[in-house]
Amino acid sequence: MAIKLYGFVPSNATFRAMVALFEKDLDFEFVKVNMAAREHKTPEFLSRNPFGHVPVLEDGDITLFESRAIALYLARTYADKGTDLIMKDPKKMAVQSVWMEVEGLKFVLPSHKLAIELYFNVIRRGREADEALVAEFETKLADVLDVYESRLAESKYLGGDRFTLADLQHLPNLHYLMKTKVKKLIDARPHVSAWAADILSRPAWVKIASMLRSEGFV
Amino acid sequence: MAIKLYGFVPSNATFRAMVALFEKDLDFEFVKVNMAAREHKTPEFLSRNPFGHVPVLEDGDITLFESRAIALYLARTYADKGTDLIMKDPKKMAVQSVWMEVEGLKFVLPSHKLAIELYFNVIRRGREADEALVAEFETKLADVLDVYESRLAESKYLGGDRFTLADLQHLPNLHYLMKTKVKKLIDARPHVSAWAADILSRPAWVKIASMLRSEGFV
Repeated sequence: MAIKLYGFVPSNATFRAMVALFEKDLDFEFVKVNMAAREHKTPEFLSRNPFGHVPVLEDGDITLFESRAIALYLARTYADKGTDLIMKDPKKMAVQSVWMEVEGLKFVLPSHKLAIELYFNVIRRGREADEALVAEFETKLADVLDVYESRLAESKYLGGDRFTLADLQHLPNLHYLMKTKVKKLIDARPHVSAWAADILSRPAWVKIASMLRSEGFV
Repeated sequence: MAIKLYGFVPSNATFRAMVALFEKDLDFEFVKVNMAAREHKTPEFLSRNPFGHVPVLEDGDITLFESRAIALYLARTYADKGTDLIMKDPKKMAVQSVWMEVEGLKFVLPSHKLAIELYFNVIRRGREADEALVAEFETKLADVLDVYESRLAESKYLGGDRFTLADLQHLPNLHYLMKTKVKKLIDARPHVSAWAADILSRPAWVKIASMLRSEGFV
């Protein structure tokens, strides 16, 4: 049975799951959920994800939600396909897990708030920026990036010596941030900047960036 | 080499890691970090966790931070000791991972905000409640608990048919919420209420609740 990914363009959670599918070189059907028509709140969709959020992955008899859990499932289940996204050594995997948690608990809030405000509200919708909100979350993001800078000075990737889920999880928000003035926070930190350029230029992400462009998102 | 847990009473992240140590029946040394003296911001502590947050776990030559990553490391590394906290079947583990993510991404924000406001600020410090904040996060928490109610109607625990990390991760915030008026949101949902009573009465958590009492936290 083919893998199905239910999602929405340009939901960053959708693209977090999708980039894992591309990295793992898996064929899948992308089922677009019409959020404007509130398809994500229909009983049918709620039976897949009771929170009514995208993405949802169906693979044979298993249905999963939460983009990071989907990516982890794909990395484990299709270990021999495409890019290996998890460390085999248990101690290395423990360290990778720390940085996966850091993304979900420390990076995602400021980066998501800034992406929504500066990319979606200001650049796309032409609204005035909420400068207090921007200042608050730029400070928070800068603190996180300072830690990333020291981590990446001693480790090529956040999770270890090769690209793993710990890096992959950052891609969607990082992509949007690079379109905004927050890019300066990344550019000011040479190791973070090199890491961002590296992971954003991976073929799996380039494919998503081109899909976003074709849907009108630069 | 003995396991060391660096933490702070009553940090809920500290107790998330500690309850995993108790569930796994592991001996460890609890090293109290003096937050008032800003010990968590010393170069020595920052070399253990560059974010300067508790908890940190040291086990032989490995140093880990982020409470959920610590709990996962203990569950994997000491698989045969104490309570088995992870599903062996890959599909069951994938579902467990979904609910571990749900805790960190959907439950923790409203429950932590409400615990800080209603337990620490109102009950302990005698301040006036910020009613707008309470109303906002009660609504958010209620939405999450509605999903938990339907999940727990068909599965005894969030992660599956037995107690796992997916449930354990909830314990510290759940403990504080039960001391506040938010308890009504839990009591109103019979499956959530039975689940909360069940997991809060596990010997590992009872030990922590008694440690909290002995430190003056009811």
